[in-house]
Amino acid sequence: GVPGGPGFPGQVQDPMYQYFVAIAGQDGQIDCEELQRCLTQAGLSGGYKPFNLETCRLMIAMLDRDLSGKMGFNEFKELGGVINGWKQHFITFDSDRSGTIDGMELQRALATMGFRLGPQTLNNITKRYSNHGRITFDDYIAICVKLRALTDSFRRRDAAHQGMVTFQYDDFVQCVMSI
Amino acid sequence: GVPGGPGFPGQVQDPMYQYFVAIAGQDGQIDCEELQRCLTQAGLSGGYKPFNLETCRLMIAMLDRDLSGKMGFNEFKELGGVINGWKQHFITFDSDRSGTIDGMELQRALATMGFRLGPQTLNNITKRYSNHGRITFDDYIAICVKLRALTDSFRRRDAAHQGMVTFQYDDFVQCVMSI
Repeated sequence: GVPGGPGFPGQVQDPMYQYFVAIAGQDGQIDCEELQRCLTQAGLSGGYKPFNLETCRLMIAMLDRDLSGKMGFNEFKELGGVINGWKQHFITFDSDRSGTIDGMELQRALATMGFRLGPQTLNNITKRYSNHGRITFDDYIAICVKLRALTDSFRRRDAAHQGMVTFQYDDFVQCVMSI
Repeated sequence: GVPGGPGFPGQVQDPMYQYFVAIAGQDGQIDCEELQRCLTQAGLSGGYKPFNLETCRLMIAMLDRDLSGKMGFNEFKELGGVINGWKQHFITFDSDRSGTIDGMELQRALATMGFRLGPQTLNNITKRYSNHGRITFDDYIAICVKLRALTDSFRRRDAAHQGMVTFQYDDFVQCVMSI
């Protein structure tokens, strides 16, 4: 017999699939609370605490192309790969394994990921996402998810690759409030 | 004697000041965790649960003109007035006092507050900030804080009042990630 049921040939041996299917149930989709559990059980919160629900919502919003507010297995798997990459990055800078990095380490981490941001912007991000000057893994992932999604949205509108985009008010709000 | 100590003439009778000063302590500033306690003790979470920390961070970011990540008493008082206005609005639409409203009620609430947004934008906001189709008071306040701050940022850049703004990538990220 094929464990995990029919309809997912080639994926039945995937350990990620086991975590997913146990939580997703019949509809094969997970919402933000189920994603929180999936990521914890799959070890993707990296030995740190579970991601908070706001971060999980952000993750769904980043990949939610059909605006269902939910996530299927393929998106979950894609997310897992992305988070693993970011986790490796974070661990590199979290040298004492405290689960936090400081503002300077965040700046280096974002630079090595290819985000080109000015000092004032980096400073604002650090202020916004730190507590007592420290950035947790959870907040770090929230920053990465937002930056990636906003950069994608910006690029889609910057068809001429000029590094600038003209937004109507409604489009600006739509672009920004969806993340 | 003057209760509350010197240095704040005219404010010592203000009940908001008592909540604030008890939590702020020596430096006269509160961070997001202290704001969460202040708002709960001042009854501003409206009989619902305390605001979550992410919402409290948003509130500080909205009013944090010196980018200290903290809030003084005058900003706290300003915030209190703003939240009270939004709370009255929310209660009007939360007819069964469940602490949640639905997407249609959100759309009417935002329209009566003067936000002019298209149906797709309203739909995206509802998807992003609801759980099982319901929007909590906490999420509602997060939406209001973000919309107000983003609209202010947009207007500051739209000097000619044309309803459109051209953003450089770095300025776009700075504007959006600060909220």
